[in-house]
Amino acid sequence: MNEVFKKLKPYLDKSMAIGSALALISWDNETLAPKEAIDNTAKVIGILSGESFQTLINPEVKKILDELKGETDLSDFEKKVFEKLYKEYKKMESIPTEEYIKFSELTTKAGSVWQKAKAENDFNLYAPYLKEIIAYTKKFAAYQNSDGKKLYDVLLDEYEEGFTMDVLDEFFSKLKAEIVPLLAKVDEKNDEIDKSFIFKSYDIEKQRSFNRWLAEYVGFDFGRGVLAESEHPFTNGSHNHDVRITTHYYENNLESAIFSTIHEAGHAIYEMGIDDKYTQTILGGGTSCGTHESQSRFFENMIGRSEKFWEPIYGKLVELFPEQLQDVNLEKFILGINKAEPSLIRVESDELTYCLHIMVRYEIEKLFIENEVDVYELPKIWNEKYKEYLGIQPKTDSEGILQDIHWSMGSVGYFPSYALGNAFAAQMYHQMKKDIPVDSLLKEGKLEPIVSYLGEHVHKYGASKEAMNILKDMTGESFNVDYYITYLKDKYTKLYNL
Amino acid sequence: MNEVFKKLKPYLDKSMAIGSALALISWDNETLAPKEAIDNTAKVIGILSGESFQTLINPEVKKILDELKGETDLSDFEKKVFEKLYKEYKKMESIPTEEYIKFSELTTKAGSVWQKAKAENDFNLYAPYLKEIIAYTKKFAAYQNSDGKKLYDVLLDEYEEGFTMDVLDEFFSKLKAEIVPLLAKVDEKNDEIDKSFIFKSYDIEKQRSFNRWLAEYVGFDFGRGVLAESEHPFTNGSHNHDVRITTHYYENNLESAIFSTIHEAGHAIYEMGIDDKYTQTILGGGTSCGTHESQSRFFENMIGRSEKFWEPIYGKLVELFPEQLQDVNLEKFILGINKAEPSLIRVESDELTYCLHIMVRYEIEKLFIENEVDVYELPKIWNEKYKEYLGIQPKTDSEGILQDIHWSMGSVGYFPSYALGNAFAAQMYHQMKKDIPVDSLLKEGKLEPIVSYLGEHVHKYGASKEAMNILKDMTGESFNVDYYITYLKDKYTKLYNL
Repeated sequence: MNEVFKKLKPYLDKSMAIGSALALISWDNETLAPKEAIDNTAKVIGILSGESFQTLINPEVKKILDELKGETDLSDFEKKVFEKLYKEYKKMESIPTEEYIKFSELTTKAGSVWQKAKAENDFNLYAPYLKEIIAYTKKFAAYQNSDGKKLYDVLLDEYEEGFTMDVLDEFFSKLKAEIVPLLAKVDEKNDEIDKSFIFKSYDIEKQRSFNRWLAEYVGFDFGRGVLAESEHPFTNGSHNHDVRITTHYYENNLESAIFSTIHEAGHAIYEMGIDDKYTQTILGGGTSCGTHESQSRFFENMIGRSEKFWEPIYGKLVELFPEQLQDVNLEKFILGINKAEPSLIRVESDELTYCLHIMVRYEIEKLFIENEVDVYELPKIWNEKYKEYLGIQPKTDSEGILQDIHWSMGSVGYFPSYALGNAFAAQMYHQMKKDIPVDSLLKEGKLEPIVSYLGEHVHKYGASKEAMNILKDMTGESFNVDYYITYLKDKYTKLYNL
Repeated sequence: MNEVFKKLKPYLDKSMAIGSALALISWDNETLAPKEAIDNTAKVIGILSGESFQTLINPEVKKILDELKGETDLSDFEKKVFEKLYKEYKKMESIPTEEYIKFSELTTKAGSVWQKAKAENDFNLYAPYLKEIIAYTKKFAAYQNSDGKKLYDVLLDEYEEGFTMDVLDEFFSKLKAEIVPLLAKVDEKNDEIDKSFIFKSYDIEKQRSFNRWLAEYVGFDFGRGVLAESEHPFTNGSHNHDVRITTHYYENNLESAIFSTIHEAGHAIYEMGIDDKYTQTILGGGTSCGTHESQSRFFENMIGRSEKFWEPIYGKLVELFPEQLQDVNLEKFILGINKAEPSLIRVESDELTYCLHIMVRYEIEKLFIENEVDVYELPKIWNEKYKEYLGIQPKTDSEGILQDIHWSMGSVGYFPSYALGNAFAAQMYHQMKKDIPVDSLLKEGKLEPIVSYLGEHVHKYGASKEAMNILKDMTGESFNVDYYITYLKDKYTKLYNL
């Protein structure tokens, strides 16, 4: 180990340990903790978060990082760790501590105001907070912006390194041109598709046993992971030997838990596949939000909603629920779980419309970061965009602009990663089908070679390789949205017999 | 708040936060964490434990404590916090850091060696570690011993402030004189008691629902607590709004989970009853091991194994398991769950013999701390004492001297607290019966007044009041072993019709 790098080790280790503790506290909070503990837990989280910040952002670490800049004999691993930490450091250092604390307080408060505003359908309650969050976000982006980028590009770079408005504008304009008219055609035929069987009564204990089996079937390793339940499904991992996912069971919805489980298992399989040399280091997680989402959406949609995937296992589901599924053959089941309809709520939307929901948010974020806009105008803009792209309009702000938590947390520039993830997945899937016999593997119920293939090309690198390079090395070309559009068009043309 | 005390606050808060995180990690480890995470979790625990140590044991805290010694206007709360911290500080400070680290490494290693030795019935494997642990324990006790006490008294004081060998010698000699002959008489009549119904097959899902109900029935508040499952039942709490207990279900043992649940619920009810002013402070836990054990054993044995307790609820158990319990009336059930027999394993022993198991350990600890003894002689000494007090001898060291984990962890002087807890409970119970109509409350299924009574006299104080003062203020006299002996004699004379 490089002698200067060695000096960094205790700081990295302490940061890792506190990070692990915070991850566990958050997991516990969402899955098991007693209700009345919450205020006291918040105090613990506050103290440990402050401690975590100070562990890496302090004069001693700064000194070591400055020394490391001049080192020429760093190993690849050391270099990557340095670069990632240095980037984070520069960003945090650019923000005056006092402003950072004020912003933390603002977002904490905004979180509960947003919840109230959503519950009471009162955007005006939330608007002043949103306004202030936008102002801080622009200010912080300006602090970080040493090389004259556009501010929204600075924000995008935080979540998806190297991606800019230029790339995203092209991405979304193609989507708009192709998917908006496709959706219209699809929607015309929706009367023919009956998915009411999904909403019959399904015993939760039986769902539990099926979902547990299903997680393992797709590749979730229970020796390194936990599947639990929470209000909203999520993945939470400390490192590749401890990855946890949740799902949520509804008695009157068979597909909700199934696709949450597969989605979160996709995230988990990514984390579990990271090479042990990155375990408990800052390279030990996924490389970007979009890449993470590419893995979850690949398992959930590209594989998980395909007929081939269900061929060997649908019988098992029918066996568990013979009455509910007696008139539902595989074809009807596949149509049901893929039915695409314009809808208002992003998290409940289907594979075809999902990116249109993201497009609305992307355009609004661009607007309020790159332009001056009256926040009180945003609900109207939101509604108009829904009308334009999805053909429907929210009746209330609760099912409109108030639906997402992200902005209240100060996460601006994050939404595009959701859409990019789908596009990454389609590009990877296209290549995968050239390299391994995906369809016949699915039909034979052999998912291991698929997991291994992704492990080799994506997972094992952890955060040591940028999303763009992963895509390029795997598929031989840069990010290309066309695969995603072709995938959606092919899939829905066939499904809907267009 | 006193100005000097205020300076202590950030250190106390940070220590509390890290302590909470460590408690949760340990809970998670025993209940849910994936198997393969253990090595990585150990690393996190190591780092956070070191951090926790350094948070309170450092020159700045020392300076503040020295200043505080001279302060005259501390509130009661501040004074108690200071005293507790100062005592801990003096103890930790007396041990050279290097020796402390070596001892930590030794006990970590000894833990796994002990496990192996127990599994393979090989005391010689463990003996060198035990020898070294004893040597360190004596050395550390000598460091702390500023006022010429006997070394074992220094150790006892750590777990049960103010208790000495003088007190314990009297305690155990009375027990020996009364309980050893009582046990012999009891054992003569054991052929008449059939408890085979306990070991029939009891569906675990039904046991789960009964135990959950039972925990709530005795006073466990699920708004502030969690009941989960682990190999060995335990209680783990961060503060009075987050107290967690576990139990363990065996298909072929009805009583094991029931009495584990009540026992741990007793610990939890103590923690839950602590006043909110102590929440998340170093006074926010129970005041001593023995006092904690007094509460768990009170609920488990004095209440939980009494006929009055079961009168209103036994029908519920029979309803759940009608076949298994069809020939078991309440009387037979009560006899079954109270059957007392000489046995070899402490954690499985009954109410009557439990303290004899402790007596063996107490005498051996005294021997190896106060005298020079060849550790290789200890198994023989152990076996002879079992023969003398319980009338039976272990055939292997695994079911003899290797059965307990405590010494491998460096816990010497802890065992007596288990016995003292029972005696505290009997003394409290005697007083309680004078103050509230315990029997009729139990018969009416009203446990709340019993919980409140203990809350008022024991729980609410947390660690702000010493065990001895709790006993004295509650019962009007100092610790008095006679109540315990009378309790056992009365109970078993009646039960066994002696």
